[in-house]
Amino acid sequence: MVGDPASTMINAYNPAAAHRLPTATRELIARRERLLGPAYRLFYEEPVHIVRGEGAYLYDADGQSYLDVYNNVPSVGHCHPHVVAALTRQAGLLSTHTRYLHETVLDYAERLLATFPGQQRHVMFTCTGSEANDLAFRIARAVTGGTGIIVTDLAYHGITDAVAGFSPSLGAHVPLGPHVRTVKAPDRYRATGDVGADFEAAVRAAIADLERHGIRLAAMYCDTIFSSDGVFSEPAGFLEGAVKAVHEAGGLFVADEVQPGFGRTGDAMWGYLRHGIEPDVVTMGKPMGNGQPIAGVAMLPRLIADFGRNARYFNTFGGNPVSCAAGLAVLEVIEAENLVQNAFDVGAYLRAELATLAKRHAVIGDVRGAGLFVGVEIVSDRAAKTPDGARTAAIVNGLRRKRVLISAAGPGANVLKIRPPLVFSKKEADLFLTAFAEVLEDVDRA
Amino acid sequence: MVGDPASTMINAYNPAAAHRLPTATRELIARRERLLGPAYRLFYEEPVHIVRGEGAYLYDADGQSYLDVYNNVPSVGHCHPHVVAALTRQAGLLSTHTRYLHETVLDYAERLLATFPGQQRHVMFTCTGSEANDLAFRIARAVTGGTGIIVTDLAYHGITDAVAGFSPSLGAHVPLGPHVRTVKAPDRYRATGDVGADFEAAVRAAIADLERHGIRLAAMYCDTIFSSDGVFSEPAGFLEGAVKAVHEAGGLFVADEVQPGFGRTGDAMWGYLRHGIEPDVVTMGKPMGNGQPIAGVAMLPRLIADFGRNARYFNTFGGNPVSCAAGLAVLEVIEAENLVQNAFDVGAYLRAELATLAKRHAVIGDVRGAGLFVGVEIVSDRAAKTPDGARTAAIVNGLRRKRVLISAAGPGANVLKIRPPLVFSKKEADLFLTAFAEVLEDVDRA
Repeated sequence: MVGDPASTMINAYNPAAAHRLPTATRELIARRERLLGPAYRLFYEEPVHIVRGEGAYLYDADGQSYLDVYNNVPSVGHCHPHVVAALTRQAGLLSTHTRYLHETVLDYAERLLATFPGQQRHVMFTCTGSEANDLAFRIARAVTGGTGIIVTDLAYHGITDAVAGFSPSLGAHVPLGPHVRTVKAPDRYRATGDVGADFEAAVRAAIADLERHGIRLAAMYCDTIFSSDGVFSEPAGFLEGAVKAVHEAGGLFVADEVQPGFGRTGDAMWGYLRHGIEPDVVTMGKPMGNGQPIAGVAMLPRLIADFGRNARYFNTFGGNPVSCAAGLAVLEVIEAENLVQNAFDVGAYLRAELATLAKRHAVIGDVRGAGLFVGVEIVSDRAAKTPDGARTAAIVNGLRRKRVLISAAGPGANVLKIRPPLVFSKKEADLFLTAFAEVLEDVDRA
Repeated sequence: MVGDPASTMINAYNPAAAHRLPTATRELIARRERLLGPAYRLFYEEPVHIVRGEGAYLYDADGQSYLDVYNNVPSVGHCHPHVVAALTRQAGLLSTHTRYLHETVLDYAERLLATFPGQQRHVMFTCTGSEANDLAFRIARAVTGGTGIIVTDLAYHGITDAVAGFSPSLGAHVPLGPHVRTVKAPDRYRATGDVGADFEAAVRAAIADLERHGIRLAAMYCDTIFSSDGVFSEPAGFLEGAVKAVHEAGGLFVADEVQPGFGRTGDAMWGYLRHGIEPDVVTMGKPMGNGQPIAGVAMLPRLIADFGRNARYFNTFGGNPVSCAAGLAVLEVIEAENLVQNAFDVGAYLRAELATLAKRHAVIGDVRGAGLFVGVEIVSDRAAKTPDGARTAAIVNGLRRKRVLISAAGPGANVLKIRPPLVFSKKEADLFLTAFAEVLEDVDRA
């Protein structure tokens, strides 16, 4: 897959199929290409034109609803009224930067930092997860004196130049830096030995290889649910050895919580907590403001002491009162609506029902995940565990035709990525399961 | 100045002077340090605690107003009701990403691109000016095959790792990359010859030096009003030779319009238009959404053709409908309230009055700028043009005590940076001028 421009993105719309689309959609796509150019990608064989969102649903111009089983950004539900109200109130009152004193950023920082149960941390605010991972890279180099970075084979950490250079999932046209090493993600489905021990051994080998090239380790970055690698969550604790290895080499362990963070994994606010580790740096983004561009870096204070004194950091929009008000409202909704527990409950229900479906459909090779981040691996041969990317694409597009939105991930583009807003209920899980069962019947017949 | 950690930022609050502050301010600063750590900087000897903004005014907790002569982000006025209404409406309707079709991003892109009078362009959306300049760097390398970057001596282009590496104004603790060369900014005040010809010669010398090191030019970045270098605007046209030199070397010319863009220079929407050039890439940010985190890159289509096909670009929050609705509302207000003309008129009035003040105060060495971006150079010796950073700091802090907010720039930290919201009226200019005259009296006596 990687290396072929037309397919460097899983579930990308293929312009060659434009003739099959309704005229209105074709025209909108043409207008988009004329204005935004060729670097943007759409989802699905038949792209979706959305005009409204509410809870776990998106709506098109004809008023038809789409069940959103994919979007993690509107984590407390599309257009949640509490978040919209907070945004509106603050936007009408004050929107400025952090070189004046204002209290919203501090109230938010205090509440956010209280969600980290370990050592006390500082938090710094950016606008995107990419900027957060970029800042973590700058801090890691300053603290360690090293430049080496270790990530997993198909990691995605963002799109700034530095971070794209250690985001192998962007494909062969975005080269990795000479200071970057990749390790196999901890895939229990295909593992032959101990997942944690194997992962630790791979990290130790990468460190040794960096050293052999005269490169000192700065940091290892892990998305603690391994989203783009294919969703790997079990067994809890498998990160311990890797963290130990990184620390022994003098590097920092960066938990990239942009995907698993803010309660998605169902047992805690942060994905890393399932693994019993204490990351040096935690980066966060996507669901943080329910769509408002806000992201951040929470680090142990000693790491920022020197960097902060010497290099300063200012992000014009980072930590502005409007974004912080949205962030605060999100934390309030997560608590008030008990969304972490909901992610746990509905996620467990979903995986149990999917496991039942798997008994009837041999294409389901594995069901895994934590909370409302669920991966379903589609295979052509269960015994050989052969990835079936084509069938996965057929399922994703079949569901889209039934107005159920999901996508896929993994090196074989064969892992269904089920990652709905956290307000997803059992009723909505059932809607998804019904549609999925129907699509599986179609796919089995195909 | 550069190299001394305590002073790598002009007009930064010095924590050593905390004992002079009111208890409430001290406590707020302590709380801020505990939560956000040491990398954040405050403005002024006595930091300002802001709770509300409206038009060209900010308000503190006691209801006291501050005249805002500094903030370019709330360009159409703090909390402009039309922008707040657009933001509110869209936030309640839909906030999603660019992998679905939605029309707000296209309506905005269309209106925005119509403000570029030259060749047709594409626009891509990011959340910050740093991300825009970072993307331009990635595109420039892909298009040219080179890596070399030329910027001015005290340029600031942003804080991602790549962009910080060509932002010398961040100080000695943020090293420039080996692929970066700096040139003297086109300073007519101190120039002995032709400003444009000297600037072109410096750029040609930098290109030659890059070549001598085996480095091919990727791009030259210019803030077209040279904000952090000290505000250089005259004579219009002085960029022509530099652009020619860059093109002859196969590089791209990136007009960084984050500061001068969106009408600030008073004669057009974009600062580069004063210089009669056609940049390959235009980057924009700060005032784009009047505080909403939105930024962008407008490039000639041929530049993105290959990059876009092969590398794709996705920015989760970039181009989201809420940010685009804010951006669209900003363009509407600029047009409806005739703000470009206002910037021209009030800016011209301000500079004329400042020139009159200069007759009475020898510390004013030069008054310059375009539209509502005005630089006033403070010197200890007019004949020798000796920068007087200490007196400039005294003026900035004297104005702050009179509740008038400005800052300073330039290699000598001696150029007053006067850059109010574009709704700044003659009445407000007079308020500023009166306070400035009083502070100058105090400073003259000191």
